[in-house]
Amino acid sequence: METIIKSKTKSVVIGAGHPFVMIGERINPTGRKKLGEEMIAGDFSRVERDAAAQVAAGAHILDVNAGVPLGDEPEMLINAIRTIQKISDVPLCIDSSVMDALEAALGAYEGKALVNSVTGEDERLDRVLPLVKKYNAAVIGLANDETGISNDPEERVRVAEKIIARAASYGIPREDVIIDPLTMTVAADPQAARNTLETMRMIREHLGVNMIAGASNVSFGLPDRSWVNAGYLPMAMLCGLTCAITDPTNPTLRQIILASDVLMGNDEYASNWIADFRKRAAANK
Amino acid sequence: METIIKSKTKSVVIGAGHPFVMIGERINPTGRKKLGEEMIAGDFSRVERDAAAQVAAGAHILDVNAGVPLGDEPEMLINAIRTIQKISDVPLCIDSSVMDALEAALGAYEGKALVNSVTGEDERLDRVLPLVKKYNAAVIGLANDETGISNDPEERVRVAEKIIARAASYGIPREDVIIDPLTMTVAADPQAARNTLETMRMIREHLGVNMIAGASNVSFGLPDRSWVNAGYLPMAMLCGLTCAITDPTNPTLRQIILASDVLMGNDEYASNWIADFRKRAAANK
Repeated sequence: METIIKSKTKSVVIGAGHPFVMIGERINPTGRKKLGEEMIAGDFSRVERDAAAQVAAGAHILDVNAGVPLGDEPEMLINAIRTIQKISDVPLCIDSSVMDALEAALGAYEGKALVNSVTGEDERLDRVLPLVKKYNAAVIGLANDETGISNDPEERVRVAEKIIARAASYGIPREDVIIDPLTMTVAADPQAARNTLETMRMIREHLGVNMIAGASNVSFGLPDRSWVNAGYLPMAMLCGLTCAITDPTNPTLRQIILASDVLMGNDEYASNWIADFRKRAAANK
Repeated sequence: METIIKSKTKSVVIGAGHPFVMIGERINPTGRKKLGEEMIAGDFSRVERDAAAQVAAGAHILDVNAGVPLGDEPEMLINAIRTIQKISDVPLCIDSSVMDALEAALGAYEGKALVNSVTGEDERLDRVLPLVKKYNAAVIGLANDETGISNDPEERVRVAEKIIARAASYGIPREDVIIDPLTMTVAADPQAARNTLETMRMIREHLGVNMIAGASNVSFGLPDRSWVNAGYLPMAMLCGLTCAITDPTNPTLRQIILASDVLMGNDEYASNWIADFRKRAAANK
């Protein structure tokens, strides 16, 4: 199954057999105080730099979040989107839980966006999905609902099914729903990663849709997190993960993803891997 | 299923749920001209240093190979084993395809060795397995036979079954057979890694024995091989790989293995991971 996300001039295909899609996570003021302050002051130069750096590092799509407390989120989100679309043709993933901001952003965006995100809660589904349909977007569905996040893979699959069915009822085809099976930290529960990997396998087998992860959640609370994230990504790719919200400017993560694409047979004759190697070798000269 | 390898004073358990066992690969003159020359000259100081370095980096077992063209392999192998057993208590994996050398080494070794290796060829099975039994060792069984290396996972499983059955006929219990499902390079065949991973899954499901890999084979012919190996190991661990012949002094490999143990639930509360992190942090001060 293929999910296609577009800018005005560029399409990105997410799907098994295609190179893994890296969605750059850095344009997000959560935990980045300076970026938040600049956004409020109307200064989007850092957004521009971060966008360029992530694209140069291999991001296929950029996540854009403008959620700053007391900020005018609709306006800031539109500014961020316009700033990025001026300097780059990568498609965008619009990341907001505020309905006004989401609708304003979808209206301003040129292309077919990915909406980040909707849960399996009825109230959220019935607010977000009509917007996804209206603006002909795709959407990330998180496998939790009113009852919270289950440790039981079957329960998460059930929530994923519910999201896909509800999307269909609004006229959104299943290829435009990307499920996030929810990655929790292994620091709190040694079985957390295996539960999510098992959920992925079941979703691939029973639902066949594309899957996404915020891979860095797996290492929350641990030291030297990049390596734990780097171990998780190949396992998840093997279980059906086809894209992730991640930081391609982190060489550990970028290199493990590109290497895993070779191993999965998504990068025939390792041509992307070899091109990246040459770029790195030239940069180190 | 647990395979236990011993020195005189130390036991290492290989098995699902236990931390992944790293078998240090460096004591091997293949492609290390200087080491080979020194071995022939009776100088085992490099063997001693390489053993110490690998153990310091976390090797649980050390592979020992003394195959130098024109060298007296039985004598050199015994010298290498005695050198290592003098300075370290890690159990050893005795690596030779020469019957005289193997028998001499097994006679000299104090403990329960791992023999590297036997194929599924009748002639090899009937020469190696009696020695494994006589010296109460465990053995690595390579999933190829007279017909070569099959691309078909089912065929490799069949060879693994044959090795286990033949071992049983010599009185060697199945927990003392560790199957190597054969890792081939993705540079020649984009499906090579997936074939082996599928073989691993089938062996885990149908035979339940421990599995080993020479993980670095997967990247033969590619640039920046460590990263490709590092992507392969987490995938393989998820499919049932419980040990590997690898280089623990390579930080990329060691760190991805330790991180993957956390993800697999083999390192509860990440205590090994955190200990390794602290050691690295102290070393970088």
